[in-house]
Amino acid sequence: MTKSRLIIIGGGFGGLNAAKALKKANVDILLIDKMNYHLFQPLLYEVATAALSPGEIATPLREILRNQENVSVIMGEVTDINTAQKQVILSNQAWFGYDYLIIATGARHSYFGNDQWEAFAPGLKTIPDALNIREQILISFEKAERADFGSILPYLTFVIIGGGPTGVEMAGAIAEIAYKTMFKNFRKINPEKAQIFLIEACPNILPSYPERLSKRAKKDLEKLGVRVLNNTKVTNIDDSGVQIADTFIASKNIIWAAGNQASKLLNCLNTPLDRAGRVIVEPDLTLSNLPEVFVIGDAAHMEYKDKLLPGIAPVAIQQGRYVAKTIIRDLDKKNRKPFKYFDKGSMATIGKAKAIAFIGKLQFTGFIAWLIWAFIHLIYLIGFRDRFIVLIEWVMTLISGKRGVRLIYSRSIDEIKE
Amino acid sequence: MTKSRLIIIGGGFGGLNAAKALKKANVDILLIDKMNYHLFQPLLYEVATAALSPGEIATPLREILRNQENVSVIMGEVTDINTAQKQVILSNQAWFGYDYLIIATGARHSYFGNDQWEAFAPGLKTIPDALNIREQILISFEKAERADFGSILPYLTFVIIGGGPTGVEMAGAIAEIAYKTMFKNFRKINPEKAQIFLIEACPNILPSYPERLSKRAKKDLEKLGVRVLNNTKVTNIDDSGVQIADTFIASKNIIWAAGNQASKLLNCLNTPLDRAGRVIVEPDLTLSNLPEVFVIGDAAHMEYKDKLLPGIAPVAIQQGRYVAKTIIRDLDKKNRKPFKYFDKGSMATIGKAKAIAFIGKLQFTGFIAWLIWAFIHLIYLIGFRDRFIVLIEWVMTLISGKRGVRLIYSRSIDEIKE
Repeated sequence: MTKSRLIIIGGGFGGLNAAKALKKANVDILLIDKMNYHLFQPLLYEVATAALSPGEIATPLREILRNQENVSVIMGEVTDINTAQKQVILSNQAWFGYDYLIIATGARHSYFGNDQWEAFAPGLKTIPDALNIREQILISFEKAERADFGSILPYLTFVIIGGGPTGVEMAGAIAEIAYKTMFKNFRKINPEKAQIFLIEACPNILPSYPERLSKRAKKDLEKLGVRVLNNTKVTNIDDSGVQIADTFIASKNIIWAAGNQASKLLNCLNTPLDRAGRVIVEPDLTLSNLPEVFVIGDAAHMEYKDKLLPGIAPVAIQQGRYVAKTIIRDLDKKNRKPFKYFDKGSMATIGKAKAIAFIGKLQFTGFIAWLIWAFIHLIYLIGFRDRFIVLIEWVMTLISGKRGVRLIYSRSIDEIKE
Repeated sequence: MTKSRLIIIGGGFGGLNAAKALKKANVDILLIDKMNYHLFQPLLYEVATAALSPGEIATPLREILRNQENVSVIMGEVTDINTAQKQVILSNQAWFGYDYLIIATGARHSYFGNDQWEAFAPGLKTIPDALNIREQILISFEKAERADFGSILPYLTFVIIGGGPTGVEMAGAIAEIAYKTMFKNFRKINPEKAQIFLIEACPNILPSYPERLSKRAKKDLEKLGVRVLNNTKVTNIDDSGVQIADTFIASKNIIWAAGNQASKLLNCLNTPLDRAGRVIVEPDLTLSNLPEVFVIGDAAHMEYKDKLLPGIAPVAIQQGRYVAKTIIRDLDKKNRKPFKYFDKGSMATIGKAKAIAFIGKLQFTGFIAWLIWAFIHLIYLIGFRDRFIVLIEWVMTLISGKRGVRLIYSRSIDEIKE
């Protein structure tokens, strides 16, 4: 019997965990990713806010899989999938045939039809995104200190749009930077004059969390100096600021954390997508009539117990492992079982050493919740090296409040005009 | 008495040490740098070869100087100096007056009139340079593994031009990557097939070192797998490789470590420059007839005991401190003394745990030399945080041989065409 050929597109939580769970299976695996690393996305906001370096939350895929001999990794961009011929086509026209395909291509941020806002309100999904936001924040303080223009207030005003976990974590971290890290760093400006707004369209931030925790998160953020605006819709964004109803907030630092859109690659599948561009999958995470094509993680739309599964790492990890098991069952001529999700809870940090978390019916707040958060994130970080270094970086950041990676190296200050 | 105004251009070893040595002096200091950080340049090759992250060898200037209240830092590019009016002019037309000026603007690499080579043979002076080279090296292995083109050998051939310390250190580190770090990382290619050439025009690499050490360095590099070509002149470089006399080395990975050129800003001073564009300074490091304008570090050409002072950190540090003392003597109405250089020796690493070093008449090789090198570099790294993290990173790199920062994030694989 010839070995089955499996192609996995995307080395995020879903794709990587599928590959690892097939370590002992009789399949030839080809993992294709645009980048050469696996990114621990839940800590990306720490890169965007200068507490961690990219190398501390990203590990080369080849390194993770070096000892798994049934996996080849190639770096490349998939531009088309031919499900009839069972082929994956790369941007350079190279193609690879498959018996099984796992599409784990993740999501980008979405501007709900206002793509022109992206230039003024970048999102946070990738390492370049994070470095872009980091440099934007830092260069704004530099511009304000130089004060070679009219008002410095727009440079010291930070607007985060979207009160989900990413928005909450960014707002808290920026408050730490402005009110603590930058202490005594400047001579002309006082970074404590910075204003930080968190804007959420729903009645509460963290709308998917229990209301008690959402309210506590708001209170904790306000203690840090963040102004939380609930029930607030953004009607326009341009290079001078954000329009909300009758109010205009002048700001040079706008960060978009409000919406996701699945990878455009999914359009080539000729299968129903939801409004966020995700594939509406079968109970075994496949396309209808294509039992060999799985879609997982942020690329998949799946209702489970009447609720849409959220776009978080635990869902992608469990789906990746489920697909691996399903392929093994197939090879063993066993019937497939539907995917079951085990909800491990949700959590978000608020500033340096606070968080909120809920695990089933248990709810945690403050420092205890942060300890749970820190413990779980360290455990899940892939590879001993990263875990160890990140732990030390965290401890140093905690002790010193310094956020040492405050480097601007991809642009000059003159690139940003008033 | 009003305070004297000192402007320092450049926050490298020279400029930063001048500022720090004036901590208690009655001067108002303005430090201007294009970047917002001080870079520990001697470890830059470790960033270029994926062993360290930029944040581990760079610290924000504001952070270093936060408690020195007589220093303001601004980020900006100086485009002109008016020595008659005693003004420094920035790219945005803002200007600042000075009573004293220290020019510590460093050097870039020089192609000896062949600037068209830069596109194919980048140099290593800045963080963006290092990230550029890092990604070039990594993407070559990725291209070779994908093998979607003719010959893979040019992608696995590395040519380092220039056998000074930077070239030697780069060649050793690339040998480590190809022959150790990448072990088991690929399925189609064997990274051990990589070829690494180090090209030097002089009869020996490290020509400023005692001949015994140069020869030992060559031997150690050859043991690592590097082919050292002495007495070899490069006659042409293009996108397919390097021409040396009658031989053409096909390579997609060419690194330039052969020459330096001081900052172009020095041209505006109307003072004699040497061939490398450095200001030929007086014994007190000033311009002739301008006792208030100092030029230090890689920007200065100074003969000391009939030898040109080399472009290394200890020279810049000592010159920065000397200028600080000289300004203090001026303010105290004391006579100036000429600059005296104390030669602390030179050292260069060869691969993971070997080095060569000489301190006066003492010469060291092998692991002992590496220990001396590691100790001295750790001591000099500015800021406790960096030193501590770098120490851990080094230990991890030593133990694992992993070079964990093998990330490609600023370009896609398709940007590099065959």
